[in-house]
Amino acid sequence: MGDITYAILGTGALGGFYGAKLQKAGNEVHFLLKSDYLEVSQNGLVIESKDGDFTLPQVLAYSDVEKMPSCDVVIVALKTTQNHLLPHILPPVIKDDGVVLVLQNGLGIEEEISQIVGNVRIIGGLCFLCSNKVAPGHIRHLDYGQITLGEYKSNYQPTGITEKMQQIAEDFQNAGISIELAEDLLLGRWKKLVWNIPYNGLSVILNARTDELMADVHTRQLVEQLMYEVALGAKSTGRVIPESFIHTMLSYTIKMKPYRTSMKIDFDESRPLEVEAIFGNSLRKAETAGVNLPQIRSLYQQLKFLDTRIIRKQGTGNREQGTGNR
Amino acid sequence: MGDITYAILGTGALGGFYGAKLQKAGNEVHFLLKSDYLEVSQNGLVIESKDGDFTLPQVLAYSDVEKMPSCDVVIVALKTTQNHLLPHILPPVIKDDGVVLVLQNGLGIEEEISQIVGNVRIIGGLCFLCSNKVAPGHIRHLDYGQITLGEYKSNYQPTGITEKMQQIAEDFQNAGISIELAEDLLLGRWKKLVWNIPYNGLSVILNARTDELMADVHTRQLVEQLMYEVALGAKSTGRVIPESFIHTMLSYTIKMKPYRTSMKIDFDESRPLEVEAIFGNSLRKAETAGVNLPQIRSLYQQLKFLDTRIIRKQGTGNREQGTGNR
Repeated sequence: MGDITYAILGTGALGGFYGAKLQKAGNEVHFLLKSDYLEVSQNGLVIESKDGDFTLPQVLAYSDVEKMPSCDVVIVALKTTQNHLLPHILPPVIKDDGVVLVLQNGLGIEEEISQIVGNVRIIGGLCFLCSNKVAPGHIRHLDYGQITLGEYKSNYQPTGITEKMQQIAEDFQNAGISIELAEDLLLGRWKKLVWNIPYNGLSVILNARTDELMADVHTRQLVEQLMYEVALGAKSTGRVIPESFIHTMLSYTIKMKPYRTSMKIDFDESRPLEVEAIFGNSLRKAETAGVNLPQIRSLYQQLKFLDTRIIRKQGTGNREQGTGNR
Repeated sequence: MGDITYAILGTGALGGFYGAKLQKAGNEVHFLLKSDYLEVSQNGLVIESKDGDFTLPQVLAYSDVEKMPSCDVVIVALKTTQNHLLPHILPPVIKDDGVVLVLQNGLGIEEEISQIVGNVRIIGGLCFLCSNKVAPGHIRHLDYGQITLGEYKSNYQPTGITEKMQQIAEDFQNAGISIELAEDLLLGRWKKLVWNIPYNGLSVILNARTDELMADVHTRQLVEQLMYEVALGAKSTGRVIPESFIHTMLSYTIKMKPYRTSMKIDFDESRPLEVEAIFGNSLRKAETAGVNLPQIRSLYQQLKFLDTRIIRKQGTGNREQGTGNR
């Protein structure tokens, strides 16, 4: 414990939460901030959590990546809409034998990052977290929190459970974060999309919570059809998502508390939407394999229209008023 | 002129406009009204039109279909969301050798009406009209106005140009309404859907005018894909819509003045949407022929969700605050 040093790129609702938990457990954590830098460098982080509130009066806060030490594990916790920053902010903080841990939604991000930092290891993390930033440096953790880890190998070849994954898992588990290890990162990412594609997309398009989407017979059907299209996309890359998994996701969502998805929260706060990472990359992966996903494509095109409207109205949004990851 | 008697079922933006034009030209026209009955029976109809304003201080107005005489031509000008009323209001006003003229959007309505009034002739009319009711008995005609007429025969067999079509066309043309005659009603209806399905649907889902949908590269593509799916639906019923027609509709819409579709106006005024006539019936026709239209289905399911929300909020809407027909 405490041997591995961490950098958090993007200290918002997600990065701030996990980083704070790691620091509280005794790990050395370096936080990169933007708009909240002054507040956090002076007063630290405040975490309200269903698992117990805590405060870190002092954290290692940075507004400039060049001033950060290089770390063993660099956690990418930006919204994917900010990933154009990665070529600038990732190389300075990553040790030569370090690990980039990508805690982002969507598909294909690890591939992009491997183009930036070719010879370090990349681990993808699928976060099931519901948290909000309620004020600068003040995060409210509402529910869930589990992360599924899977290591990236070129072309998303399955890696099995690696030692590196286990080392990081140990730190997270010691910090009270529940971890699952996946032998096949790409399968894990597609599985998460089974949920994210229908609910994130339709919640924005129809201004609806998950419970409303499931209560209506037509959107419930559409959700299910979209899930099957995600499975088709997975299949086009050689990954099998069984029907039983889709049924589990449907009944799991029916039982969930009414939920406003992360994309809906972004939309409501006029922040750019993670359309490309979640929808665009999935479509392109399937397309490369010659598979068309027409209902996902519809949703993608609709969301792009709304996203363009947001970007035009506001310029780029503020990544640090982050939200949950689902 | 004046030999044929007309009944207008639904004296809104569309029925009121065409009925008034017919009366002004000397035809006997009987108007069925609901909420505007008192106003119109006392003060008649006021038409503001780009082709010239006029007032009809006296019209034959009815609030009760049982008090109307049976007429030669009964014009169905309700919104299709009110078509559940037809079994009650259609039979009393139609002469045994009369004609039902269906001035409604969507597909399959003539079939439904043939179930109600088996032995009269049915003509479908596709209206390209932009008009609004701005106050009780007060209609503002903004643009267009042409009607394409086609006669219905069981199973939508093409009828060619019939004498009945020509008779009615003559009255309309004498009233200053531009008429086109179609030899194949079903083909005409599918062609109108090439426009109505993408623009009506997406304008509601994305809160957008036609010009906005065409200016964005993604929705422009989606519009085009939806048009191709309509052509696929037409093909499933043996009707060919050439690619050139789709290109014409796209460039025509780009040149149009920014337009708020009729379904968007209904949506903005919290009236029930014509989802079943336009989307549901098209999907079912194609499905019967074993053809799946996934992007139209997505739109249908999304619109049904929004429509249910409207109906739940407001009870049924008021058909007479009608709008244009596009």
